[in-house]
Amino acid sequence: MSYTLLLRNCGQLLTLAPTSATGPLAGPDQADWPIITDGYVACVHDRIVALGPMAELDEAQVTAATRVVHAAGRVVLPGLVECHTHLVFGGNRAAEFQRKLRGESYLDILAGGGGILSTVRATRAAPDAELLAAALRHLAGFRRYGITTLEAKSGYGLDAETELRLLRVAREAGRRQPIRVVSTFLGAHVPGPEYPGRPADYLTMLARDVLPQLDPAEVPFVDIFCEEGAFSVAQARDYLTRARELGFGLKIHAEQLHELGGCEMAAALGAISIDHADYLSAAGAARIARATGGRTVAVLLPLVPLFLRQERYAPGRKFIDAGLPVALSTDFNPGSCPSKNLWLALSMACLKMGLTPREALAAVTINAAWAIGQQQQCGSLEPGKRADLLVLDVATAEEIPYWLGENPVRHVIIGGELMADDNGWENA
Amino acid sequence: MSYTLLLRNCGQLLTLAPTSATGPLAGPDQADWPIITDGYVACVHDRIVALGPMAELDEAQVTAATRVVHAAGRVVLPGLVECHTHLVFGGNRAAEFQRKLRGESYLDILAGGGGILSTVRATRAAPDAELLAAALRHLAGFRRYGITTLEAKSGYGLDAETELRLLRVAREAGRRQPIRVVSTFLGAHVPGPEYPGRPADYLTMLARDVLPQLDPAEVPFVDIFCEEGAFSVAQARDYLTRARELGFGLKIHAEQLHELGGCEMAAALGAISIDHADYLSAAGAARIARATGGRTVAVLLPLVPLFLRQERYAPGRKFIDAGLPVALSTDFNPGSCPSKNLWLALSMACLKMGLTPREALAAVTINAAWAIGQQQQCGSLEPGKRADLLVLDVATAEEIPYWLGENPVRHVIIGGELMADDNGWENA
Ligand SMILES: [Zn+2]
Ligand SMILES: [Zn+2]
Repeated sequence: MSYTLLLRNCGQLLTLAPTSATGPLAGPDQADWPIITDGYVACVHDRIVALGPMAELDEAQVTAATRVVHAAGRVVLPGLVECHTHLVFGGNRAAEFQRKLRGESYLDILAGGGGILSTVRATRAAPDAELLAAALRHLAGFRRYGITTLEAKSGYGLDAETELRLLRVAREAGRRQPIRVVSTFLGAHVPGPEYPGRPADYLTMLARDVLPQLDPAEVPFVDIFCEEGAFSVAQARDYLTRARELGFGLKIHAEQLHELGGCEMAAALGAISIDHADYLSAAGAARIARATGGRTVAVLLPLVPLFLRQERYAPGRKFIDAGLPVALSTDFNPGSCPSKNLWLALSMACLKMGLTPREALAAVTINAAWAIGQQQQCGSLEPGKRADLLVLDVATAEEIPYWLGENPVRHVIIGGELMADDNGWENA
Repeated sequence: MSYTLLLRNCGQLLTLAPTSATGPLAGPDQADWPIITDGYVACVHDRIVALGPMAELDEAQVTAATRVVHAAGRVVLPGLVECHTHLVFGGNRAAEFQRKLRGESYLDILAGGGGILSTVRATRAAPDAELLAAALRHLAGFRRYGITTLEAKSGYGLDAETELRLLRVAREAGRRQPIRVVSTFLGAHVPGPEYPGRPADYLTMLARDVLPQLDPAEVPFVDIFCEEGAFSVAQARDYLTRARELGFGLKIHAEQLHELGGCEMAAALGAISIDHADYLSAAGAARIARATGGRTVAVLLPLVPLFLRQERYAPGRKFIDAGLPVALSTDFNPGSCPSKNLWLALSMACLKMGLTPREALAAVTINAAWAIGQQQQCGSLEPGKRADLLVLDVATAEEIPYWLGENPVRHVIIGGELMADDNGWENA
């Protein structure tokens, strides 16, 4: 059968597909994946069917029915996988950000009704249609940055009804546009405002009133924020254990501000990812890598310390050296990181966490796919995977983190379809 | 005469035009400029002719010949002024960046032929057409970020012939696309490779062989890099004094890595701007502000310490409090800041230098225009100024630094013409 889409003359084809990978790319493997020079990628409908050097292209499959994209020496890679976002929320916190810049403390802002609970109020008050419209706007923004698969957490409802509503909105947003949306339940973001000082009671409510209503086929992951002011390690262990019994994959926000041991606890329960990890030590990372056989991915979020002016970054270099697979994400959310620019996160991981460009590229593609259980579908260029592809306006992989903060995306292809919006690039 | 272009229903019209400004916005004035709620801007051909609240729009001037842009509640502001770039150069230094990330020292890289002289070699070797094509690509990138006026320095030729060639290329690039390009001669970037250990001889050559060939009407500014390894304060004083005699405006790169006194020296000579200033003290800033009557603008470049991992940022907050007007720029160049994302620089100035959103907005518009002598043409919304306008996809000014690293630009209008590329935003 003839190709329906062909990308030809790709200057560098970043496959992100080592020949022998059976798990997330860890240790030296995170940087060790093939780049094909002057390559092609061929797709039939929504799947990749072949790729390799141009010299090996089977021209017989290129017919009048084939849409041909000339990459003209540019870099081609898999669509980015954004593995940690808080996609659905009401309002924004720009005014609060301005107050912080003027020197108001977080406590002043909380006392003035700011902080996460202001987003919870705005989210509860917003009708479904408004939340959906905002989520679709954010997804359109992500698409311009070349995100083709995205994890979306609930967590700004903090009551059973609103949390379920946020998951429905995320699902609907996934249906209405081409980015594949993977849902995570983060009702356990912080204790709901109806449970002051009673985090355990709040978790009991979630386990009783929400978890049994969720289908792991639709909401595959349950997440919790383990931190002072949110939930303790013991509370998180009980809650995640219950979620595991119900068939959910596990995630955790931990070691963002203190080293409490949440990452190790969750990894021991078989969590698919441990997120933030700014305070996780290299020794802790090594223990996790050994205990999990390298299956648990550390999802690092370098734009959060930047935006919060905390300047404590997860030691990503040490994590990789310790054998812990690393993924990267924006943590897109209204409070601690209002950014969809995953390329900036990639550059910051190089500058602040010591990743090399190749390691960082694996961290936003194949390892991010593993972090949300989508490794069979996306994250690398391999026959059988979804035809999610980017053409960048650079010639080499190392240019990607180099052009700091810029959006290198020239073309986005999702499921074999070339998106109409091309970021304003003029004719090639 | 009827309007040729009308922007209507601008949710916030950021005028950047205080009623009584006669110089760069300094001290409290840097944040104190009017925002018109629900406003309009009307243009005839390439000029703004009227603006104000929608209620005051003269509908009689809106005819069939008027192109109407509905801003639909969005922010509208003047096109950004990028007041410090090294636009014209050959090659890039992405491979060198990767080596630095792997831990190689600057000295190792110099020993391996890297550093600024590698760009000089690539630039000297590149034909005019190649330099021009690269400059036009970079300008197209800047335009997507809403830059409508841009300063471009020479400085990667480091011999008389190539430096003159770079100025010609910049001028030609200005002619071939809509961004207004303002040229600066920075032959005194570092001593040319033919003058090892003889910086004064190199400056003598420039003053003899290049400066007299330049017309201040075409190349209005002369700049020098005053730093260890480049030129001393005394050398810079002599050179800038000669440039002033020949009718050039003066600029300086100073206090980037050490406090040598270059900023104060240049300000005393009447420099229009003092650039970098990461090591300039608040006391020095106050002396400069007093001595110059607030006419010299400090051009701060927050992406440079970020990219170089030096983390010493100019104390912009203190400069403003001391009465020194502040502008912001990327410093776009292949070695210390390969970024055209001036919005990221704006956010970083808020996060790292303590500017408020309003101060930072003045720093990329009207104060940047003053820093390159273009304040009569651009940088604010006032009748008579060039119709360079941006429609952003945000509703309030404080959202601009908040959406970290993103490009908020929805529409770019230069000289009254709506640019075709709209950054991939779909229909409003
Ligand atoms: Zn998060
Ligand atoms: Zn510079």
